[in-house]
Amino acid sequence: MRAQYHEELDYLGELLVEMTHLAGSALNRATTALLDADLTLAESVIASDELLNMRSRELGDRAVELLARQQPVASDLRTIIAALTMNDHLERMGDLAAHVAKTARLRYPESAAYPEVRELILRMGQVAQRIVEKVGTTIATRDVHAAAEVRHDDDEMDQLHRRLFAVMLDPGWPHGVEAAIDVTLLSRFFERYADHAVSVAQQVIFVVTGEMVVNPGGRH
Amino acid sequence: MRAQYHEELDYLGELLVEMTHLAGSALNRATTALLDADLTLAESVIASDELLNMRSRELGDRAVELLARQQPVASDLRTIIAALTMNDHLERMGDLAAHVAKTARLRYPESAAYPEVRELILRMGQVAQRIVEKVGTTIATRDVHAAAEVRHDDDEMDQLHRRLFAVMLDPGWPHGVEAAIDVTLLSRFFERYADHAVSVAQQVIFVVTGEMVVNPGGRH
Repeated sequence: MRAQYHEELDYLGELLVEMTHLAGSALNRATTALLDADLTLAESVIASDELLNMRSRELGDRAVELLARQQPVASDLRTIIAALTMNDHLERMGDLAAHVAKTARLRYPESAAYPEVRELILRMGQVAQRIVEKVGTTIATRDVHAAAEVRHDDDEMDQLHRRLFAVMLDPGWPHGVEAAIDVTLLSRFFERYADHAVSVAQQVIFVVTGEMVVNPGGRH
Repeated sequence: MRAQYHEELDYLGELLVEMTHLAGSALNRATTALLDADLTLAESVIASDELLNMRSRELGDRAVELLARQQPVASDLRTIIAALTMNDHLERMGDLAAHVAKTARLRYPESAAYPEVRELILRMGQVAQRIVEKVGTTIATRDVHAAAEVRHDDDEMDQLHRRLFAVMLDPGWPHGVEAAIDVTLLSRFFERYADHAVSVAQQVIFVVTGEMVVNPGGRH
């Protein structure tokens, strides 16, 4: 019985890692769809969010079933509660990737990644990718150092977010208000995606060390 | 022992209701701070978010302690897990109210509620207030009908959100890109606040009926 229980606990971890892959792939493809004004790719990102949602429901059901059946205490209880919290963040990351794809779809056949912000959006996508990959590794390996690194990557994301705003506020910004609204929301989606990934990493640190990381600046 | 246990479960509900009051008051005051360019009020909203965060931590600790000590199953287990989910949403609502207050502070002594959008922002604040009050009542009374109503209020919020965009996209919008960025983000904060409140209401429905409400259109 105990062996099966630990297999089931491990399976929660595997589901979470799979969810990081799905959320990572979704934002990666959404960013490409945005940069290339690729409608088919955008549609595929929007459709594939349902797979992440299914995994999320499976994880929620299994976690609650484990709580009911095994009555865990101490660190196992903490692990399962943390898995539920990570689950919510990862599900939301999928939503945000779908939002990026929806913006690409909305502006098709134009690209909402206007030339002046193209490079910055590309880099936001790359930083997000790096973060979500580290988070996946962190869940799989329980490597607290990698989890802590994610915060620095998130600082880079915040800098890119601020630089995007600076570009739009430049008197030379030629695309007017509608484009600024698009880019503001896009930038917010990337930034929030990274924030959720940081929250997942913090849960790993909590599970491994028992210490809750309190975000000094508060969340955005 | 059982009586004490049920008292402790009830206390989780009381904490959640208190958190709806705190989150409601925060957004109410933040909206006033924004409309009146009231720096002192904005600062007080930002500072008081820590009280909501404290309640959130208290609720999280007590819920996990209850799980460990009482080993609940079935509906009690479902109630405690739902309380943890509601807790996350309410904590985030406090963050979003603080974001509105920070925007007010950023633009002081000007008001970020530009004359053309003032009425719409006022109404977003009122709709949010109505929603969060219903959610508080819903948690206290387990009234599933009130919980379901919240979805209609949220539709109203989405309409206001779209109308704000229409105002900014009007060729007569005189405030340029910086103001549009402010208003886009503000509008997003109100809209997300309402979404989180809807998620809290859905958890109440889930606890009372055992049926998970699946959001047909997905979250924003």
